[in-house]
Amino acid sequence: MRILLNGCGGKMGKVVIEAAKKFDNAIIAAGIDNFTKDSFDFPVFKTIDSCNVSVDVILDFSRPDALEDILKLAEKNNLPVVLCTTGFSDDQIEKINAFSKEHAIFRSGNMSIGINVINNILKNISAFLYENYDIEIIEKHHNQKVDAPSGTALLLGDTIKAAIKADTVYVNGREGIHKREHNEIGVHAIRGGSIVGEHEIIFAGQGETIELKHTAISREVFAVGALKACEFMQGKSKGLYNMDNVLNS
Amino acid sequence: MRILLNGCGGKMGKVVIEAAKKFDNAIIAAGIDNFTKDSFDFPVFKTIDSCNVSVDVILDFSRPDALEDILKLAEKNNLPVVLCTTGFSDDQIEKINAFSKEHAIFRSGNMSIGINVINNILKNISAFLYENYDIEIIEKHHNQKVDAPSGTALLLGDTIKAAIKADTVYVNGREGIHKREHNEIGVHAIRGGSIVGEHEIIFAGQGETIELKHTAISREVFAVGALKACEFMQGKSKGLYNMDNVLNS
Amino acid sequence: MRILLNGCGGKMGKVVIEAAKKFDNAIIAAGIDNFTKDSFDFPVFKTIDSCNVSVDVILDFSRPDALEDILKLAEKNNLPVVLCTTGFSDDQIEKINAFSKEHAIFRSGNMSIGINVINNILKNISAFLYENYDIEIIEKHHNQKVDAPSGTALLLGDTIKAAIKADTVYVNGREGIHKREHNEIGVHAIRGGSIVGEHEIIFAGQGETIELKHTAISREVFAVGALKACEFMQGKSKGLYNMDNVLNS
Amino acid sequence: MRILLNGCGGKMGKVVIEAAKKFDNAIIAAGIDNFTKDSFDFPVFKTIDSCNVSVDVILDFSRPDALEDILKLAEKNNLPVVLCTTGFSDDQIEKINAFSKEHAIFRSGNMSIGINVINNILKNISAFLYENYDIEIIEKHHNQKVDAPSGTALLLGDTIKAAIKADTVYVNGREGIHKREHNEIGVHAIRGGSIVGEHEIIFAGQGETIELKHTAISREVFAVGALKACEFMQGKSKGLYNMDNVLNS
Repeated sequence: MRILLNGCGGKMGKVVIEAAKKFDNAIIAAGIDNFTKDSFDFPVFKTIDSCNVSVDVILDFSRPDALEDILKLAEKNNLPVVLCTTGFSDDQIEKINAFSKEHAIFRSGNMSIGINVINNILKNISAFLYENYDIEIIEKHHNQKVDAPSGTALLLGDTIKAAIKADTVYVNGREGIHKREHNEIGVHAIRGGSIVGEHEIIFAGQGETIELKHTAISREVFAVGALKACEFMQGKSKGLYNMDNVLNS
Repeated sequence: MRILLNGCGGKMGKVVIEAAKKFDNAIIAAGIDNFTKDSFDFPVFKTIDSCNVSVDVILDFSRPDALEDILKLAEKNNLPVVLCTTGFSDDQIEKINAFSKEHAIFRSGNMSIGINVINNILKNISAFLYENYDIEIIEKHHNQKVDAPSGTALLLGDTIKAAIKADTVYVNGREGIHKREHNEIGVHAIRGGSIVGEHEIIFAGQGETIELKHTAISREVFAVGALKACEFMQGKSKGLYNMDNVLNS
Repeated sequence: MRILLNGCGGKMGKVVIEAAKKFDNAIIAAGIDNFTKDSFDFPVFKTIDSCNVSVDVILDFSRPDALEDILKLAEKNNLPVVLCTTGFSDDQIEKINAFSKEHAIFRSGNMSIGINVINNILKNISAFLYENYDIEIIEKHHNQKVDAPSGTALLLGDTIKAAIKADTVYVNGREGIHKREHNEIGVHAIRGGSIVGEHEIIFAGQGETIELKHTAISREVFAVGALKACEFMQGKSKGLYNMDNVLNS
Repeated sequence: MRILLNGCGGKMGKVVIEAAKKFDNAIIAAGIDNFTKDSFDFPVFKTIDSCNVSVDVILDFSRPDALEDILKLAEKNNLPVVLCTTGFSDDQIEKINAFSKEHAIFRSGNMSIGINVINNILKNISAFLYENYDIEIIEKHHNQKVDAPSGTALLLGDTIKAAIKADTVYVNGREGIHKREHNEIGVHAIRGGSIVGEHEIIFAGQGETIELKHTAISREVFAVGALKACEFMQGKSKGLYNMDNVLNS
């Protein structure tokens, strides 16, 4: 499987390059990066449309504004696309959905297998447990992360909310006199040091708690998930896919 | 719902009595206990066959050797039985199974809702995760517990083993030079102070871990599970039931 | 040691009565409670000044407004006082301090041995670690608790602040775009089910975290701490004491 | 500060090289490695005695059998030595101690600041807590680690044992009927995936637990500790030092 890596010079791009070396059958055939000054083992182009290397799949770890160029290249060469960027606007998401009618495209809010396994569990158990258990989410990240709560905490929280079908509200901290209402979902953002990423969902009932916890040990885990997604997407001709499709394949 | 509580004078019996006061529609109508000298709000009989109070369900928190008397009474009065005792012999389990052909009987290795929710999750995810994740179980209990690992840890471990369908082995500790084999399932028994009961299953993969954890805060949780089981069993006429049936009802 | 228990009919009063039965040499000789209708194994008086039973120490688990009566009785009979109530006003704290010039009085924000051990550790390590580690506190309590963060979380946080001697600020939740400043001390209040009480302090540095965690398993732990304090105060004639004095005795 | 890095081509050597780039005033001036084929930004020698570069301190992340050559070079050039290798024989430890009478040498069982902070806490609290608390240690590492329990778990356990001064015994797992004795110290080795390293000490008492936990997020933490040790040792002329000296400086 030959991969075109968009954003090869970024932090995650470099992790993907290392992970690909250990991954069966994955070759980074070319990279795109407008800014990097580093040297690579494969040809690197400044822009997507200048890339003339033959590949099987486009893997994107760059920024939302690269979307149009990616879709253009995918259309031209009939290539499946794996989007690992987050922060797309509603317009862009609509564009992705429309694109998927005729082409194969993958998009996920979190590339780790583990988060997606937990997300699936939450789909199954949240409605039942909500009857008798209070739900709280704790997420921990390094002190350089600027958004709170994390996108993944909200991904998990939204799954819980959708499953419950009741009128729940997020509470991002408690201070002063505050009697907990059952329909609160506490989402607490801890920030410190170089913590890679932890997400914990607590179901607290009478006399017992159930906790589901995911710990990212290194960014490699997102690279491995991305490569698995590339493998899955290889040869697909149309449709919108996500990590669930990869897990169930 | 009128309950006959076998073992009303024991530690769990007393917790059931308190929990029943807060439970909708549950009345302890009579108790059986050969040893207790305490006074109760309901009539207490020394033996099962001397009990002449009309009830809807028999709830047992006593000892395995009470099984025959319980089944005899259940047969005579056509009553459903909820067994919360553990430690039955193979012979006794066979007797329970045979009894269920004509009568309604409930048996579970752990009465908490939470443990059963986790057990169900394990059925679903263990086979898939085992391909790339190592599995370890940690359980923690008070310093008076004499068996290790706990029955519940083995219940969860056996669920994992059954789901995986590979040749896995339990490892109850590591010492000296010991390279982990993938088919090991570590089961670690921590003992100390007055810890009520914790069970944690770890799936450790490349770059990430997934953890499922159950914490029993008080014995009340087992009483509430038992009362829910009684409610579920009320009016059942035959069949062998467990906590899964209660959860899915 | 004969104890006068003020607030014997309250939730903690009852836990103290049970704990005293298992404690060497502790006898609840009399109780004070204006509201209770329960029966007790010792004489119970409606008001402090109507109590005519001879005791060695006064133990208070009631409300701040009982302070004046307690001090009056302690003065009259020359008795040491153990205050386990929280929420005193500044005026009342001044009164306690003044009282201690001539009489023996004990006051603590948390009666558990464990919290006080952790509080002492924080005094020693916070200033050193603050140079290179971010500090966050997570506390978890049941869903009926109305104040957030818990008094104990603030007790621990104040110890950290006092040790650091820099201009630190509490942050009780994070939402939206929020780049962590090093002088933030995050204090996060999780609320759910029947969690008894957990306090966790995280020091998050480059490449490592240090965590200190206290878990209260049952309210008994506060009763045992109170009885140890009574034992320590027995025979003391003047001075202001706290849990540190008990730990170091 | 100019550093001679023995073992520059190994896994930890490379982490030290990266960490030094971000560390104030630390320059890897030369490396020693007999096996590496990689290229470096500094001269690399196959043997210690062929190194002719002027440095301020020798930093060793190689193997115990390099000890003699290191000490010879240190003696010849009057250089302080920082040993980060573990697994020295008793003979070698004696040699190190003797060497320290005339030269400056640093040795530590774990190079992280955090583990040493926890080790110091254990010195202070273990004897007091042992009276009423049971002590258990849980350590977690990746599935390639061959020794169990980890050297660091034993370092911490030995500190506890030395502080307690009673006849305690390590228990590395529990199986079957096993009533916990108070003088047991459980040491449990969890192995799985790519866990970097966690060490948790549990003090479990009546009604409460106290936990101290260290998590290594990446190997960088050991490199940073080593560079801090180099900084501390620079200019020292004799004596045996360890991480405590660095922490208290």
